[in-house]
Amino acid sequence: MMQTLSINNNQRLQLAPLAVPSRLLLGPGPSNAHPTVLEAMNTSPLGHLDPAFLGLMDEIQSLLRYTWQTENPLTIAVSGTGTAAMEATIANTVEPGDVVLVGVMGYFGNRLVDMAGRYGADVRTIAKSWGQVFTLDELRSALETHRPSLLALVHAETSTGARQPLEGVGDLCREFGCLLLVDTVTSLGGVPIFLDEWGVDLAYSCSQKGLGCSPGASPFTMSPRAVEKLQKRPNKVANWYLDMTLLNKYWGQERIYHHTAPINLYYGLREALRLIAEEGLENCWQRHQKNAEYLWDRLEDLGLTLHVQREFRLPTLTTVCIPEGVDGKAIARQLLNEHNIEIGGGLGELAGKVWRVGLMGFNSRQESVDKFLDALGNIGVRG
Amino acid sequence: MMQTLSINNNQRLQLAPLAVPSRLLLGPGPSNAHPTVLEAMNTSPLGHLDPAFLGLMDEIQSLLRYTWQTENPLTIAVSGTGTAAMEATIANTVEPGDVVLVGVMGYFGNRLVDMAGRYGADVRTIAKSWGQVFTLDELRSALETHRPSLLALVHAETSTGARQPLEGVGDLCREFGCLLLVDTVTSLGGVPIFLDEWGVDLAYSCSQKGLGCSPGASPFTMSPRAVEKLQKRPNKVANWYLDMTLLNKYWGQERIYHHTAPINLYYGLREALRLIAEEGLENCWQRHQKNAEYLWDRLEDLGLTLHVQREFRLPTLTTVCIPEGVDGKAIARQLLNEHNIEIGGGLGELAGKVWRVGLMGFNSRQESVDKFLDALGNIGVRG
Repeated sequence: MMQTLSINNNQRLQLAPLAVPSRLLLGPGPSNAHPTVLEAMNTSPLGHLDPAFLGLMDEIQSLLRYTWQTENPLTIAVSGTGTAAMEATIANTVEPGDVVLVGVMGYFGNRLVDMAGRYGADVRTIAKSWGQVFTLDELRSALETHRPSLLALVHAETSTGARQPLEGVGDLCREFGCLLLVDTVTSLGGVPIFLDEWGVDLAYSCSQKGLGCSPGASPFTMSPRAVEKLQKRPNKVANWYLDMTLLNKYWGQERIYHHTAPINLYYGLREALRLIAEEGLENCWQRHQKNAEYLWDRLEDLGLTLHVQREFRLPTLTTVCIPEGVDGKAIARQLLNEHNIEIGGGLGELAGKVWRVGLMGFNSRQESVDKFLDALGNIGVRG
Repeated sequence: MMQTLSINNNQRLQLAPLAVPSRLLLGPGPSNAHPTVLEAMNTSPLGHLDPAFLGLMDEIQSLLRYTWQTENPLTIAVSGTGTAAMEATIANTVEPGDVVLVGVMGYFGNRLVDMAGRYGADVRTIAKSWGQVFTLDELRSALETHRPSLLALVHAETSTGARQPLEGVGDLCREFGCLLLVDTVTSLGGVPIFLDEWGVDLAYSCSQKGLGCSPGASPFTMSPRAVEKLQKRPNKVANWYLDMTLLNKYWGQERIYHHTAPINLYYGLREALRLIAEEGLENCWQRHQKNAEYLWDRLEDLGLTLHVQREFRLPTLTTVCIPEGVDGKAIARQLLNEHNIEIGGGLGELAGKVWRVGLMGFNSRQESVDKFLDALGNIGVRG
């Protein structure tokens, strides 16, 4: 062993084993993982080319297709958090000079704008004030004006709690010859989605919200139409880690090594998806809706106002207007420190104006709502 | 809840809870995670902006600096596997047209070439046959010829088992005014590294080898010289997920949300690094060396030949020549199926010629070597 230098111990912290407070995570995500998901993650790792592991990858693919209601062969989990899966949709389909139209009605629309720009897109935007959604007529008119090769919309805007209806948008996109990309980070597993029926070409999500898993392995899907655009591009995808031409050789039949998968997270994701298949997608959606309505009613009983019109409210994430004169941050801090409950604050246009309360995956239970409202009552929050 | 369509149950697999075989992972990685690392991962998640979680991120930063022997402020874990951290080094420092010189002596050198090209680099290469390493004179002469802005070398070539000496290379790079980028995927935690003393500007690694963690959260570090190049670039980094100007605002003092960290993996990484600090870096390196030498001696006792010259052999990964007439793949399959031991095969130039045997992190124990050699004996492999 060649070693002549002496060790610098400046940064050698002497720490006790991990001890973290036990929180009820009712913010915009992460949510608490289902206990059996954590148990599954606590399993000795397999190699990323072990036949037993490859079988598990196939199971994840099928169950992701079920959860998204798609038959897209190219449906995988990206080895990163939801933002990596978001970037994967852009990186694989945007070529320099492509016109990309983004519907911006919150923070994550803006993130899509920034990302598409980095891949050389000619980015155009249409905007709504945060909490509103686009109508089909508005989308048609924007497609007529901009003639994009890709329309990107956020199905569930995590920053506002609004649900963008998608019925009919895929048909519009076909009429105008463009691909439809949809952010389902805060909807997958908790809000009805029919990717194929709606004609969605690209979608991404995360593991730590509606799926009730831990963050770090993120659903990605791409329709055969989108794959065709990928196959026709003259240059390599401008991102090695997220290049679907390479990733598809690992997830597909060839099983060619690309990168070492986050093995234990895939264990967790497989268990989270297994639980959804066991419960049934329709039951799972209905549970999210029922618990959200219970939350909404009880918040309104307290005299509080909800930011989004009921028809477009996400069952997974509720934005609650902070009453006049109340210090929203102080209340959130009190909930965390005194009650071990995390909720989120507002972002961008809604900073200081709303709290964001998530009921997702394992946390979408009446018990979560009751705990939260008891804590609010204890603190004395009223509208 | 808007839902008029009916559910397609084609992909709704009905699965039993996860049950995977228990393997001893002696391939090129992943290795088995330390049991207390898996335990730490089995902890209820915190939010990614929870003060308790931010404190844990600070601990990870310090302990990574210790393990790499650097004082670089910008030392973090990237939310992806080692390849994502590799891409982060390239994405943040390569601007279109930059001359990037890559030393290729195996598979991962070629990966750097491919990646740098995707970020618009004018890539030049020098090559060695797989298993060899570069001399300082060879590097000087290549720097003179190509005058790159970045020299990229692989410290520990996972495809060959060779250790590239780095003493003096940083001085050379300063003489020629270029940055030094080093792949430490298969060396961090198991092979002596002194990043600052060696004048390394950029390095990346993974969690599932020498650190004894699960894969998915990957060490990344960048010297102030490299940060200066990043700050001067006229255009945005061509990768949103890995943009250090944004990530540094989350890991640094500002604590601005960038993406949801893989919370439970960070728990595991913190525990893995805590164990290294407890053992002491020098002890940890010596343990890897001692167990590797024990493996080498016992393999040679069996009449087997090792591919790399002893002086440049990695203690973490050993390439063993497959004896004439032996079906290497069949032996590896037998080890897996009959003995639950995983080893790796050769890649590229070494495909079909070597086995790759890893002793990394928690698996660098005499017990692992004994189990492996008993199994080899049982199968009847001899040189």
